[in-house]
Amino acid sequence: MPTVKLSEIATGAPKKVSKEAAETAMKKILDELDELQNLLYAEHKHSLLVVLQGMDAAGKDGAIRDVFGQLNPMGVKVQPFKAPTERETDHDFLWRIHLHAPPKGVIQVFNRSHYEDVLVQRVHKWVDEKTIRKRMDAINDFEKLLTVHNNTHILKFYLHVSQKEQAQRLEERTKDPRKMWKYNEKDLAEAKLYKTYWKAYEDVFKHCGKVPWHIIPADDNWFKEFLIAKTVRDTLKSLKMKYPRLPEAKK
Amino acid sequence: MPTVKLSEIATGAPKKVSKEAAETAMKKILDELDELQNLLYAEHKHSLLVVLQGMDAAGKDGAIRDVFGQLNPMGVKVQPFKAPTERETDHDFLWRIHLHAPPKGVIQVFNRSHYEDVLVQRVHKWVDEKTIRKRMDAINDFEKLLTVHNNTHILKFYLHVSQKEQAQRLEERTKDPRKMWKYNEKDLAEAKLYKTYWKAYEDVFKHCGKVPWHIIPADDNWFKEFLIAKTVRDTLKSLKMKYPRLPEAKK
Repeated sequence: MPTVKLSEIATGAPKKVSKEAAETAMKKILDELDELQNLLYAEHKHSLLVVLQGMDAAGKDGAIRDVFGQLNPMGVKVQPFKAPTERETDHDFLWRIHLHAPPKGVIQVFNRSHYEDVLVQRVHKWVDEKTIRKRMDAINDFEKLLTVHNNTHILKFYLHVSQKEQAQRLEERTKDPRKMWKYNEKDLAEAKLYKTYWKAYEDVFKHCGKVPWHIIPADDNWFKEFLIAKTVRDTLKSLKMKYPRLPEAKK
Repeated sequence: MPTVKLSEIATGAPKKVSKEAAETAMKKILDELDELQNLLYAEHKHSLLVVLQGMDAAGKDGAIRDVFGQLNPMGVKVQPFKAPTERETDHDFLWRIHLHAPPKGVIQVFNRSHYEDVLVQRVHKWVDEKTIRKRMDAINDFEKLLTVHNNTHILKFYLHVSQKEQAQRLEERTKDPRKMWKYNEKDLAEAKLYKTYWKAYEDVFKHCGKVPWHIIPADDNWFKEFLIAKTVRDTLKSLKMKYPRLPEAKK
């Protein structure tokens, strides 16, 4: 992946895209996604892993609800990754991740992921730089394993939100009763570290970019969701899937 | 690992080792193992993965019983790998293996392993040679992951049995009521393919030898078990483990 400077990348929707046009297109895309997901499940040949990364309040939860919420949950799973449990830290950092890798036919969404082990842990210097580099190598090997040995297509999204928009969303959590459950005083301290986070993300794009990252402007939720849905649709469409026919004997 | 020709490697105990001396030494080794296992569990820093491979009737089950059977089962787990289930084949071939990787403090024994995917599947040509090579690469990455990122020490044993001894043991399964439950008519057909298996094993030693293989002469069970126990003991001893002291506050 070419070098990325996050400070030079827009966080809002481009002016040329109107909200109305995007919302109309979105309806069609969601219908197509519904059909493509069914086909993925029926064909049972590929799987899709969607990795969602971004700072607090970047809109990961909303993206999951609005893009994947209308699909058949039989074939769509969501797994959040929070601070690892004791049982998880007794294993290598990819153990709990591998466990939730998608089986054939399934769309698996990761709300945060193995990338936290080279982001939050690096920003806070909980591990040394040498270990970070080794973890990145292990992540590349792991993504290759899923891709080569189980036909898993991996889509990695970074939700790019401005510091201003993030501050506003965190503020909302202290005022809107429907959002207070998300309030965490630690988020404010984390938000202050956004420059260090951006640098860590830029390094991830560089060293773990063989499976490319999609950088999604995330200040406008409607645009963010449109772009994610479109990318998922395009990826599934490119697989040229077919419904299996009846076995020979039944023809 | 240097190139190995299995046809040139002895399958029986060397003449210079007497059964009596080995059995006396074995008693001491098993006592040491018991203490070392307790220390491994208490220190909670390393883990040990023991991979047992070998043809049918090579004595894998017996090795497990006699070497690990007297240890505390709280810290010693055994996992056999048979033909994969449908749920398992819906994932990459290492998924079911990774699930059973040892947590810190634990000795995990694999009765057969991920190596079956580059052995039985290759001998029967169920997958093409290109896939076999890619699987070997993935196995090397996987073993590196466990070693580097969870302090897992991997001991790989190949139990080397002669065709004659194997034939005799398979024959016993048709006569001894205590062994009949192991009888499987397919084993006889597999045994005929021993030259192809040996070739496949030699290739595994070559391409997946970064974590070295221990080739164990397995015609004499007492010698096989002595050698495995000794290797496990030496490995655990080399870790220079220490019982944790009381936390500062309690001193």
